Amino acid sequence: MKVEQVLHMNGGMGEYSYVKNSSLQGTVISMVKPMLEETITELCSAMLPGADCLKVADLGCSAGPNSLLVVSEIIDTIDETCRRLKHPPPCLQAFLNDLPGNDFNAIFKYLLPRFYDRLEIEKGNKFAINKCFVAGVAGSFYGRLFPPNSLHFVHSSYAIMWISKAPKELVTKAGTALNKDNICVAKTSPHAVFEAYLDQFKRDFTLFLRCRAGEIVPNGRMLLTTMGSIKSNDPLTIWEFVGLKLHDMVAEGLIEEEKLGSFNLPYYAASTEEIKSVIEAEGSFKLQNMEVFNVDWDDYIKKADTKQVVDKTTRATMIAKDIRAVGEPILGSHFGEDIMDDLFRRFKEDVFDYMETHKCQFVNVVMSLIKKDI
Amino acid sequence: MKVEQVLHMNGGMGEYSYVKNSSLQGTVISMVKPMLEETITELCSAMLPGADCLKVADLGCSAGPNSLLVVSEIIDTIDETCRRLKHPPPCLQAFLNDLPGNDFNAIFKYLLPRFYDRLEIEKGNKFAINKCFVAGVAGSFYGRLFPPNSLHFVHSSYAIMWISKAPKELVTKAGTALNKDNICVAKTSPHAVFEAYLDQFKRDFTLFLRCRAGEIVPNGRMLLTTMGSIKSNDPLTIWEFVGLKLHDMVAEGLIEEEKLGSFNLPYYAASTEEIKSVIEAEGSFKLQNMEVFNVDWDDYIKKADTKQVVDKTTRATMIAKDIRAVGEPILGSHFGEDIMDDLFRRFKEDVFDYMETHKCQFVNVVMSLIKKDI
Repeated sequence: MKVEQVLHMNGGMGEYSYVKNSSLQGTVISMVKPMLEETITELCSAMLPGADCLKVADLGCSAGPNSLLVVSEIIDTIDETCRRLKHPPPCLQAFLNDLPGNDFNAIFKYLLPRFYDRLEIEKGNKFAINKCFVAGVAGSFYGRLFPPNSLHFVHSSYAIMWISKAPKELVTKAGTALNKDNICVAKTSPHAVFEAYLDQFKRDFTLFLRCRAGEIVPNGRMLLTTMGSIKSNDPLTIWEFVGLKLHDMVAEGLIEEEKLGSFNLPYYAASTEEIKSVIEAEGSFKLQNMEVFNVDWDDYIKKADTKQVVDKTTRATMIAKDIRAVGEPILGSHFGEDIMDDLFRRFKEDVFDYMETHKCQFVNVVMSLIKKDI
Repeated sequence: MKVEQVLHMNGGMGEYSYVKNSSLQGTVISMVKPMLEETITELCSAMLPGADCLKVADLGCSAGPNSLLVVSEIIDTIDETCRRLKHPPPCLQAFLNDLPGNDFNAIFKYLLPRFYDRLEIEKGNKFAINKCFVAGVAGSFYGRLFPPNSLHFVHSSYAIMWISKAPKELVTKAGTALNKDNICVAKTSPHAVFEAYLDQFKRDFTLFLRCRAGEIVPNGRMLLTTMGSIKSNDPLTIWEFVGLKLHDMVAEGLIEEEKLGSFNLPYYAASTEEIKSVIEAEGSFKLQNMEVFNVDWDDYIKKADTKQVVDKTTRATMIAKDIRAVGEPILGSHFGEDIMDDLFRRFKEDVFDYMETHKCQFVNVVMSLIKKDI
């Protein structure tokens, strides 16, 4: 099955929906806010007066409380910048992109009306419906999504670590699974697995940059946040832990060994050096700034909760639900929906023991890029 | 309940879905094709060389086989024009618009991939994914949908006869329903009903033109097809017949009299004179051309079927399903879903008798407009 058909967040409004379980992603966006503000301020100052419409795209927007969060932050910054420069704000056209399986109906029917209502309350009619135009664009960002020179700014958060497919080299021509005990690059993965994933990432990220270079105006900007790795062989990802739980289920005879062997996530957390080298080799963008920040797997829960101490079990439950909201469609389509409850119950029960014996952090890489004017 | 929440075509893929019951709308689009070709040819010739991207919007696109039909026809015309002018074709950015209740997921997940596949086969890579970019925009066209000067062409078919709301004057301050036996302007409607509907149409169509004037570039074009009326008091609409069936059900005690009295469709089929007068008064557009063509209610079925004679019952069933696909969400939300089967059974059984005693035609008005360069 093609990645595009199974890679999307859990839809609906249920217990395991992305709508109800995406505070990690929201926290990360908030942490990147200063860099977003800096970028939009510079872009806005350079454009004014002149351009009357700032065109931006958020790639991998999903459908949940974060889908319009970046658009809100952009509007705040435009508002502040224009007030300071004593200039009427330009209008904003925002394109929300995700794969075709994303729940765009939810964005249009529920999230967008609320977004406009809040905008009206917070900004009056200065940024309401006549000044902010939102459109949906379905398709893979490993391909062209927009006309030439049509965007001033591209944003993406927690999306480009999802590569276009698991590398085909992970299964040899003879049918041997190279990464049989894992579902992504992990400590126990053989070297060939690292290489295959890195190669796929290089091809995909190069394509990503080339496509965006075609779409962004000269001197236009891009701000990308992705899950990263301090070293490319440092398996700090939470997906490795999901793999361990699947491995346990194989050991207990609940999943066939071959089923696990043949599954690999289209996921690669690159190191800053790997990212830099692709940007340089592709050549269309200048890397203006790159920052790395780590957060413990449960930091975002502790941060969100300032009033009371959240106990370990509650935190484990939240992490399990958040990961389930992201991983269930792709895991369920391969291993079967019927084992998902068991898998994430194990995840929840074991995650704290694991966190006490391993360094469990999300590594976040944020990069600010400028389209070269050549 | 707001019109925007209940006015949309029947979703899904079921027996009464718009996907399976929209050949009338498709036939009308095909009949307007020569005017579309003429418009796009002129637009394309005037733009080339220079503009590298033609930006178009289809307002009221719905979600079904017709949703991308106009985009396909536009691409055919661009292709033909550029071949003749020996010029590489510009890229196309097409915005599909409908109310937030429209099934955009169906467009993105099912219709768009098939559209791209067919484009690839028919045009090679000349117009495939790198040359044609489709976005979805949710919102009422009785409001701004796009940034200033951002469109070259706006298309709309069978949409603007749906006005923003049923006129509030149809119920007096004392609570008396003026149009109590009907659901839209009908022969038996009192004069005040005609006036109230016409006033609402004038306000709405003026707003429509003003909004589009803000969005379309100078000398940009607009092609609108709507259900019309030869005279404004000539009740040739199929909705009048739906009203008669509801009236029968009131007489039989199946629907409360007040329930019918309080319901009026947000629907007005204007005469050419009424349309012309609004265009002139609003002032942003020059009316280049206006054509009227009538088709019998079952013409589109007879035309689609060249090989065999479709009997009356089959034709009546098709008309009933087509009208149900359009009207069920708004009728069902007022009268209750449980009476819909009975209503459309009556419609199907009686429609041919009615057609034999009345002049039953869809009146179609097509207008080609040019945005004034002032």
